[in-house]
Amino acid sequence: MAKYVYFFGGGKADGKAEMKKLLGGKGANLAEMTNLGIPVPAGYTISTEVCNCYQKNHSYPEGLEGELVENLKKLEEASGKKLGDSQNPLLVSVRSGAAFSMPGMMDTVLNLGLNGQTIEGLIKSTNNERFSYDAYRRFVQMFSNVVLGIEHSKFEEILQKKKDAKGVKADTDLDAQDLKGLVQEYKDLVKQEKGIDFPDNPQEQLKRAYTAVFSSWDNERAITYRKLHNIPDDLGTAVNVQMMVFGNMGSDSGTGVAFTRNPSTGEKKFYGEYLLNAQGEDVVAGIRTPEHIDRLKQEMPVVYQQLEEIYQKLELHYRDMQDMEFTIEKGKLFILQTRTGKRTAHSAVKVAVDMVQEGLINKKEAVMRVQPKQIDQLLHPMIDPKAEIRVIAKGLPASPGAAVGKVVFTAKEAQEKGKNEKVILVRMETSPEDIGGMAVAQGILTARGGMTSHAAVVARGMGKCCVAGCESIAVNEKDKEFSVGDLKIKEGNHISLDGSTGRVILGEASLIESDLSNDFTTLMDWADESRTLKIRTNADTPQDACKAREFGAEGIGLCRTEHMFFGKERLPIVREMILAKDKDSRLQALQKLLPMQKDDFKGIFKAMRGLPVTIRLLDPPLHEFLPQSEEGIQETAANIGVSPEELQKKIQSLHEINPMLGHRGCRLGIIYPEITEMQARAIFEAACELAKEEISVTPEIMVPLVSEVKEFNLQKSVIVAVAQKVMDEQKTKLDYLIGTMIEIPRAALTADEIAREAEFFSFGTNDLTQMAFGFSRDDAGKFLPAYVEKGILNDDPFAVLDQRGVGQLVEMAVQKGRSSRADLKIGICGEHGGEPSSVEYCYRIGLNYVSCSPFRVPIARLAAAQAAIRSLPATSHPATQH
Amino acid sequence: MAKYVYFFGGGKADGKAEMKKLLGGKGANLAEMTNLGIPVPAGYTISTEVCNCYQKNHSYPEGLEGELVENLKKLEEASGKKLGDSQNPLLVSVRSGAAFSMPGMMDTVLNLGLNGQTIEGLIKSTNNERFSYDAYRRFVQMFSNVVLGIEHSKFEEILQKKKDAKGVKADTDLDAQDLKGLVQEYKDLVKQEKGIDFPDNPQEQLKRAYTAVFSSWDNERAITYRKLHNIPDDLGTAVNVQMMVFGNMGSDSGTGVAFTRNPSTGEKKFYGEYLLNAQGEDVVAGIRTPEHIDRLKQEMPVVYQQLEEIYQKLELHYRDMQDMEFTIEKGKLFILQTRTGKRTAHSAVKVAVDMVQEGLINKKEAVMRVQPKQIDQLLHPMIDPKAEIRVIAKGLPASPGAAVGKVVFTAKEAQEKGKNEKVILVRMETSPEDIGGMAVAQGILTARGGMTSHAAVVARGMGKCCVAGCESIAVNEKDKEFSVGDLKIKEGNHISLDGSTGRVILGEASLIESDLSNDFTTLMDWADESRTLKIRTNADTPQDACKAREFGAEGIGLCRTEHMFFGKERLPIVREMILAKDKDSRLQALQKLLPMQKDDFKGIFKAMRGLPVTIRLLDPPLHEFLPQSEEGIQETAANIGVSPEELQKKIQSLHEINPMLGHRGCRLGIIYPEITEMQARAIFEAACELAKEEISVTPEIMVPLVSEVKEFNLQKSVIVAVAQKVMDEQKTKLDYLIGTMIEIPRAALTADEIAREAEFFSFGTNDLTQMAFGFSRDDAGKFLPAYVEKGILNDDPFAVLDQRGVGQLVEMAVQKGRSSRADLKIGICGEHGGEPSSVEYCYRIGLNYVSCSPFRVPIARLAAAQAAIRSLPATSHPATQH
Repeated sequence: MAKYVYFFGGGKADGKAEMKKLLGGKGANLAEMTNLGIPVPAGYTISTEVCNCYQKNHSYPEGLEGELVENLKKLEEASGKKLGDSQNPLLVSVRSGAAFSMPGMMDTVLNLGLNGQTIEGLIKSTNNERFSYDAYRRFVQMFSNVVLGIEHSKFEEILQKKKDAKGVKADTDLDAQDLKGLVQEYKDLVKQEKGIDFPDNPQEQLKRAYTAVFSSWDNERAITYRKLHNIPDDLGTAVNVQMMVFGNMGSDSGTGVAFTRNPSTGEKKFYGEYLLNAQGEDVVAGIRTPEHIDRLKQEMPVVYQQLEEIYQKLELHYRDMQDMEFTIEKGKLFILQTRTGKRTAHSAVKVAVDMVQEGLINKKEAVMRVQPKQIDQLLHPMIDPKAEIRVIAKGLPASPGAAVGKVVFTAKEAQEKGKNEKVILVRMETSPEDIGGMAVAQGILTARGGMTSHAAVVARGMGKCCVAGCESIAVNEKDKEFSVGDLKIKEGNHISLDGSTGRVILGEASLIESDLSNDFTTLMDWADESRTLKIRTNADTPQDACKAREFGAEGIGLCRTEHMFFGKERLPIVREMILAKDKDSRLQALQKLLPMQKDDFKGIFKAMRGLPVTIRLLDPPLHEFLPQSEEGIQETAANIGVSPEELQKKIQSLHEINPMLGHRGCRLGIIYPEITEMQARAIFEAACELAKEEISVTPEIMVPLVSEVKEFNLQKSVIVAVAQKVMDEQKTKLDYLIGTMIEIPRAALTADEIAREAEFFSFGTNDLTQMAFGFSRDDAGKFLPAYVEKGILNDDPFAVLDQRGVGQLVEMAVQKGRSSRADLKIGICGEHGGEPSSVEYCYRIGLNYVSCSPFRVPIARLAAAQAAIRSLPATSHPATQH
Repeated sequence: MAKYVYFFGGGKADGKAEMKKLLGGKGANLAEMTNLGIPVPAGYTISTEVCNCYQKNHSYPEGLEGELVENLKKLEEASGKKLGDSQNPLLVSVRSGAAFSMPGMMDTVLNLGLNGQTIEGLIKSTNNERFSYDAYRRFVQMFSNVVLGIEHSKFEEILQKKKDAKGVKADTDLDAQDLKGLVQEYKDLVKQEKGIDFPDNPQEQLKRAYTAVFSSWDNERAITYRKLHNIPDDLGTAVNVQMMVFGNMGSDSGTGVAFTRNPSTGEKKFYGEYLLNAQGEDVVAGIRTPEHIDRLKQEMPVVYQQLEEIYQKLELHYRDMQDMEFTIEKGKLFILQTRTGKRTAHSAVKVAVDMVQEGLINKKEAVMRVQPKQIDQLLHPMIDPKAEIRVIAKGLPASPGAAVGKVVFTAKEAQEKGKNEKVILVRMETSPEDIGGMAVAQGILTARGGMTSHAAVVARGMGKCCVAGCESIAVNEKDKEFSVGDLKIKEGNHISLDGSTGRVILGEASLIESDLSNDFTTLMDWADESRTLKIRTNADTPQDACKAREFGAEGIGLCRTEHMFFGKERLPIVREMILAKDKDSRLQALQKLLPMQKDDFKGIFKAMRGLPVTIRLLDPPLHEFLPQSEEGIQETAANIGVSPEELQKKIQSLHEINPMLGHRGCRLGIIYPEITEMQARAIFEAACELAKEEISVTPEIMVPLVSEVKEFNLQKSVIVAVAQKVMDEQKTKLDYLIGTMIEIPRAALTADEIAREAEFFSFGTNDLTQMAFGFSRDDAGKFLPAYVEKGILNDDPFAVLDQRGVGQLVEMAVQKGRSSRADLKIGICGEHGGEPSSVEYCYRIGLNYVSCSPFRVPIARLAAAQAAIRSLPATSHPATQH
């Protein structure tokens, strides 16, 4: 015979943790705790099958009625109370509980069972008339809203009128009589709105409540939510009916929350707070200051000891730090809920390492216990979560950490003032010209641009806090101020940035500095033991390369050569090269750049001694190097000996409408092979000269923006010729690889052809995402946040790789590429290389490495380890921490 | 036993036309003609197998030697001459001949067999010492260059010195003695350069010549060419050794070219020119004016009759108009070559229709005989090919036809002056604001932008000549002039444009007007009989729609609603809508636009009465509608009642770095659903009102720029709700479809998901090409021409659909889309819809229709018919005309 209702209480439950699909998450959990002997308030769960039956037939299955009667009887026995009893009434909560939590569904009705008779019993047993009527009016409001569908605001209006009439402000200023009056007024509202009397029969209340839960499964919001999150419609929800317990029944009652270990520090010590004669919401409301849990030991030693036993049992059972809610009703302890405790990064690392040392979990499990994203907290300063702050705007969390400083509006000012004081650079958007200023600023705030905008990428590379694409600020560089609504922030005013959340804060927020513990090192070592995916870094300077090695990078996956071009002494020569009238003058300028580039490469090769270094040839459109300001044009014109008008014309002729899709990448090298030649020569001369110092270097030269194998072939032939020439000149033999970025959809589509010629692939997922979606990273700020908000996209695809769409191109390129060249080395160097879910994806589809900015290397190491552990056979696969 | 050498001569040949792979194109052709009894100069072909053997082993196969001796003997017999004979020497040509013609390979050595002895025989038989020595020195030069590898320029230097010494300018001013001297000097050069004597032994000359041909198969240029054109390396080339015949052996000799029908008019009359006592190059050099072929009838009646018999035989055999080269040597007629004759569009149509009426070919064959691209010649005026013109620049052939007019630099001037005189609008690039000016101009010339730039697309839509992306012109709008190098063209100066070739011509070129014959109509009717692919048109106005119907369009595949927004009385309202401060003011502006849009749609629906009309919702970024000039900003600011500064700020805030990838397409409708609502209402109200007039309309509403099915769903729900509301209001029931553009790679990748919701797909291959390649159509002018020139790409992918790359996305979307919805209607509305090879592709992959600009509809009809015919089983498949 079918079973529809599952009882829990009195130390025994019909269900268990594994029955999540049938009982919902909440129901399965309550059953599990009950079976452990934890004193959970008794109750029963009506299974998801009932929901599905109701959805299909709009009626309940045969046999349900009988089971419900029987289970209510058991509940009354367990609680020693009776539903509808005027002396000792049983009050229950009715809650929905699906396998996934799902907004849009009916959620909770508390204090169900109250009516004109039972209220008397409640007053008697609590000895608190005000509380009882407050519970009653809340019940009427909640039931009327979620079960009968009357707008919440209508009840709030009545409440407000009552307060106005009494001339008070807070709800707490209303006394028992006021609240009693409210109950009646609420009931009148129900009559008026729905033409019915508020149901006073507790049985009827109960039936209407669980029917409302089941009906809400198919309301519009819930359906939309499921559609957006790909949750099947036939999953259904369960309903939990559970006895109410009250912590405000006198001084032998109370309520509290406790953690089995310290959630801030990870210290292994029971930690929590409580209030006697209080309800949970009193703790939250902050009207009374809660006591430290230690004090309970003296006040209620028996309960405390029971709590201690329970927390130890729970931690042992769940093998993780727990966060419990408890209520003491007349000296009797009830555990309302236990769940894995949220914790700081610091605490997460310590708890994980400690638990291994205690023998509670193994190393692999420890590795799974820290969320890779949390590591940012350890590497960067953070806004003190306890500080009072005034958030004035929110942008994209483009580069984690926090910063405080005085506002400046140009890179030049940043460089001038940044020497002596802390500054925050605020720009409409940044360009390569701003790099100097970004380097000295504490943090960067831009009004435009997405997660892979120039500001975001450069800031992450520098490990510097950045809030990008903050569209609600209006930057006025001329008047040296920016505004948010009516608020104006002038140059020199203080602001603070939280690059981990995107918050812009007025004034100086207090910061918590970063701090790497020994435990962290231990945990990362354990991570490396499980990891197979290699982690490289994106680094353009010897400094970045060193930093990344410290963080555990195993090579450079992307060395962008253009950033070198922006050096103070180089930019004029680069401009000379770009503005050259003919090939000869261009060659002359390139000749001057050659020794500089060679020095750059030598520095980086030395820093990475022995590790692979992938160098990307010049990528950005040439106009990015040209001056934009009047002043800059004057200066450059004088430098190269033409009139400013003529220079302006040339700049105009290089202007592009869509530079992202313009003359850049290998398209430059194809039109100007002499640029490729110079860069190749710089690389090979650097490598040869180091080889003579017995520093081994294996350069990997990467041709960017290939869309067609013939482009690659032309560039490859130029590079090979230079390599041969340099090796002959230097009488040295070098190993080297020539490969390409896969960053254009067509390159992925024709990867089999390209792999016949290219020795490695590196996915440039920033550009691949831009082109696969048709989203400009610089302009998507106008709609992308709304897309994520409306659920059109689950994540910003520039932050989290879009596996369903862009991923198809990536997988196609891997499969096609390896079909032509079985040992093709494949990595990723887009910003996704440091994002945990994307790292896991890269592992799963068989890439050889991911490459990310130095400060994300530890995140990638951990994420790669977790991916490897998660892919182990189920028996050896420890549960993931969420 | 293997056979390596194939003889032809004396009315019989070892080979035949089908042996192209073994004998190369030329060899197979010569054999075929010989077998037909055509008097071809005798010779033999050394097969491609010999080439492959030589490449592999660097030696010739066993048995070849014997065959060569035997065939040479046969050739001597056939010619009545002997190789190396001092009385009557056999001279031969040695030519390479692969299955495909291939630049970079050794091509031809003429007059082989000459030396100190045989020259005497030649002088005697020609009775022309000057000619003989000229033949000799040419042979030495050709042989030394192509066989021995001595640079051509070195011989030219010697020749120049000789002329200088004699004080003459033309080669023809040198006499026999001069030429004799040159032969020796050339031979001295060989000695000096190569340290060898010039080979005088004709046998050795012959062996070295064919070995040079075989070796050239593997020279670098040939390898590169094959790589670029995907020609297999093991195809090999054949070598043709053929006796020389001379038309300059006296007044009983001559040479000429003839067509079996008139290549200009198509008239069925033998047509040609000849010169007596002359060589082929005399005809080409134009020193003597050739005679009309009719005159030969009187001068050499026997030969003429023979020629007539041959041309009739050839036309009957090849079943197409032939272009023959002939030489008469001492009264004996030789046919050197016959090939399908090139012809004008006019001639092509007439010849095809005539040949059906003559019973020579069937209708399907006739349809195959006209190149779809040629039809442009019939629909548009052309530059008279005989006119003398001065081409000053070359841009992209963006919209066919030709135009003459005075230069103007702004749309406003075009509108003012264009009423009274013919003007050509010259712009840096055009924007939607220029449409009025473009409409009155004869033609449009832009310095920027590709084959799908605004200027190109709009001009094609108008059937107006356009040369786009002419990067070599510098447009100075301020000073009202443009320059090409040092040449300045001022406002009011005349220029002419050739939109079919991209030529910009100084002054007024004479034009040939377009002319559609009855034959054309007949041919198009035959095409439609074979065609299954539907042809629709891209049309935004009732006028365009009518024009397209005249040309045979079967519906509208793309009606762009934004062009309607640029009307004089609308633009201010559109701007009001864009600049609205809140939703209410935006709704007010939209309310004003509604009746205007409704009228637009009614006009178009009426014009297309009964045929399907696909309407695309608003697509371009909103900033395209905003004023750019100081003046426009002032005016608009006054209109909407804000300060110019404030308006400037708003414009600035809408600015995008990469508008192509920015806030446009359905991204607009998602952020501002009220725009979609207004457009949907305009469509449905228009359709409902017409339904009441018994004009049936089935609107197909197209959501642009979808990258994710959830975007489509949101827009679909808005449209469906409006449709329901309007139908309720109007008490009318309508059939309608909601579908989407597939123009973003991710849409193609997730087409299965999208097709579950969308009722039709239309490929926007312009944008799909942009994003798949990462090429901005507006900026690719900086590198795309070089790409095509270098052979990186065979064609401009904006003109000819890239089947290898972009095509993968198209096919993927077709397959995935139909896997979700078997009856999904699929078309293409990108500019490729009117390009013949792309139309054929669309047919092959199973699209339902292509849609193109009105003037390309006939091209698409013909191309679609040819595609259908080509796909028939081989037996019923007439050969394609190339």
